[in-house]
Amino acid sequence: MRIEVICTGDEVLTGKIVNTNFSYITQKLADVGLSVDWETTVGDDRENLLRAFQLAGERADAVIVNGGLGPTVDDLSQEIAAKAAGVELELNEDWLRRMEDFFKRRSRVMPPNNRKQAMLPTTAEVIDNPIGTACGFAVDIGRARFYFTPGVPRELRRMLEEQIIPRLLAKAGLPGAIFLKRFHSYGLGESHVDSLLTGVEALVPDGSVKLGFRAHYPQLETKLTARGLDLDDIRAKLEPVEREIRRRIGNFILAEDDQTLEGVVLRALQEQRGSLAVVETFTSGHILGRLAHLPGAEAVVRRGVVARMPAEVWTAVGLPGEAPNGALTPEHAEAVARAFREQTGASHTLAVLVDLDDGPDRIEFGGTICLAIATAGDVASRKARILGGRDWVRLGAVELGLDCLRRYLQRLPVYERIDFEKT
Amino acid sequence: MRIEVICTGDEVLTGKIVNTNFSYITQKLADVGLSVDWETTVGDDRENLLRAFQLAGERADAVIVNGGLGPTVDDLSQEIAAKAAGVELELNEDWLRRMEDFFKRRSRVMPPNNRKQAMLPTTAEVIDNPIGTACGFAVDIGRARFYFTPGVPRELRRMLEEQIIPRLLAKAGLPGAIFLKRFHSYGLGESHVDSLLTGVEALVPDGSVKLGFRAHYPQLETKLTARGLDLDDIRAKLEPVEREIRRRIGNFILAEDDQTLEGVVLRALQEQRGSLAVVETFTSGHILGRLAHLPGAEAVVRRGVVARMPAEVWTAVGLPGEAPNGALTPEHAEAVARAFREQTGASHTLAVLVDLDDGPDRIEFGGTICLAIATAGDVASRKARILGGRDWVRLGAVELGLDCLRRYLQRLPVYERIDFEKT
Repeated sequence: MRIEVICTGDEVLTGKIVNTNFSYITQKLADVGLSVDWETTVGDDRENLLRAFQLAGERADAVIVNGGLGPTVDDLSQEIAAKAAGVELELNEDWLRRMEDFFKRRSRVMPPNNRKQAMLPTTAEVIDNPIGTACGFAVDIGRARFYFTPGVPRELRRMLEEQIIPRLLAKAGLPGAIFLKRFHSYGLGESHVDSLLTGVEALVPDGSVKLGFRAHYPQLETKLTARGLDLDDIRAKLEPVEREIRRRIGNFILAEDDQTLEGVVLRALQEQRGSLAVVETFTSGHILGRLAHLPGAEAVVRRGVVARMPAEVWTAVGLPGEAPNGALTPEHAEAVARAFREQTGASHTLAVLVDLDDGPDRIEFGGTICLAIATAGDVASRKARILGGRDWVRLGAVELGLDCLRRYLQRLPVYERIDFEKT
Repeated sequence: MRIEVICTGDEVLTGKIVNTNFSYITQKLADVGLSVDWETTVGDDRENLLRAFQLAGERADAVIVNGGLGPTVDDLSQEIAAKAAGVELELNEDWLRRMEDFFKRRSRVMPPNNRKQAMLPTTAEVIDNPIGTACGFAVDIGRARFYFTPGVPRELRRMLEEQIIPRLLAKAGLPGAIFLKRFHSYGLGESHVDSLLTGVEALVPDGSVKLGFRAHYPQLETKLTARGLDLDDIRAKLEPVEREIRRRIGNFILAEDDQTLEGVVLRALQEQRGSLAVVETFTSGHILGRLAHLPGAEAVVRRGVVARMPAEVWTAVGLPGEAPNGALTPEHAEAVARAFREQTGASHTLAVLVDLDDGPDRIEFGGTICLAIATAGDVASRKARILGGRDWVRLGAVELGLDCLRRYLQRLPVYERIDFEKT
């Protein structure tokens, strides 16, 4: 089945906004095994819209159109859809009432220009938008079925996932129930994980589970797309595959599905009724920055100190004696983490100290990371050398620090060699 | 002149990467008064590429193609360009030597598959790429001139600005010399600045200077696009307009052209041989995070402390006595900034303390920001209330803190009412 996407609107065409709706649509379709063949962006322009609809209608089986369903004069999607389909526009009384209710529930009167949003091509099938006034619809143009969606991202998302993807799957003759299971890991490269997971798809002999990856350094997402009759069927199929994945790359899995590394760390601290203080060098405070704004973090995140020079760190955490002049060691990080714990009274402290290479930034530029986690009676530390330029080292130090803390909180070994470190 | 853009590559079509190259191209063209009419994205697929080239060649006068110039088998742009233009590919000996030199300067031998990058359509005009091995070129397809550019963003940017935009301007019959002057401001909304700047374009009676805006909260970019015979002519035209803009919104201009607020702050501190320490609450350390990673910052940025609760702040900076239980005041921020200066020995300290509203996040959710800047013999402070939800308050507190520091360093009033604050 050939699928195309048409994005409309001057804001996208002129680059005032980056077209994240398109990348969302195409990723979401890929997650259920559908692929987009062609994307077109045109502005709020009758001639170009009509031409884009006609061309896509000649080439594709299904077309998703995004944007142009609003109440203003430059929202042209319904008008041009009707023209391209060779039909008239007519008022959809049901949608008009829906909109009037929508405004009434918000104690407002519907402005007259919103009426335009209920004007649909006579042949249109309404596609529900439970959270907005833009009415989705489907209509045939040429040989393709066109699905019209709102430009507002959360309305698009809801409509695509609940209404349009099931229609596309049915049109493609694919089983309706689809489930996407995701594992997020840090420390193993895509090809390494790929080889570690050789054969896991075959644990489900009917081919209904597919393995895929999405790399966004420093994390890697491992995806399982599963099809089945219903969700119970899918869960039963996925269960042995998930178990095997956890067995093979278990300690490296930092989060699953919509979880994040920082969210997992925060929840583990909350469950242990713990609190956290963080000392960072070179990372610009980005470790604490990942955690401190999360809901609930205010009761957990005690304090952060950011500094550049060892002497500043030693002073800030109240460590007696001179800061080291030469290379940093894990023992230095342990001393800093311990001292900062005493100073702040936090149940857990994380110290991430980075020794940077000298000279200008370059691809072989590296940093040596010494980090430690201290609690009342315990301390754990680790050293790693990461290359790849200043930004790469910074990203790596932030991720390594958070992930070692995650490992510590989950009682996993803090030290396991990762693919990104050099010795 | 009708301009189209074709973006190629499976990574863009599948949404693995968001298409920021397109928004860059179309913004850059808008900056010089050219507009894009149509954008097409296709994958690394011979049939779709050929169809996209042919369709654009029928519709447009100029087409910019991005991507597909690399050395691997899925890089197809030259091959399909030749096919669409109805000519053969041939080896460009000059470019082959350029590539061999490129590798030699890096002490490497050119891999054999890079040779493919020197295969160009026989009718191609070479477009130089001074920083990579992907050879840009121009060729006629249908009624349009096609410009082929690399997918690597920095190579695309260089080629577009230096090579392709001048060719497009010449093709459009526009004066060749164009200059874009940009002012970045914080604190005044777009419509407010628009009304403050009424009539500035008319200071250049021939209409060759155009005023425009690009809002990206919390900053606003005010743009002047000027055309002229040459750069001297343009500078002479711009001079009275720039002077008037500085007169009308002067104190709010935080940076110009490629400068950033954090860069301006860092440079001012460097010029005053100063050093900086920052105490932040609620901002997750993002104020220091904007500064600390900049080149040269290691000699200036002394220390940062991040905390959530006033009691933690008071302890961290060594302030005697109890932290306030009730609302924070500018005097509290002054005391914190002073104490932190004594503790760190930094020449300048910035304290940004935020009192958040209670309850769940919502659009009317607000925060009261008390901030202070302390030096050896001086202290300045300011209070502001910002609404708009947690993220909005956080962004506002970060920007306000950095901008007040900028004002202080530039000997401007730290307090001037901004459009985003409520009283």
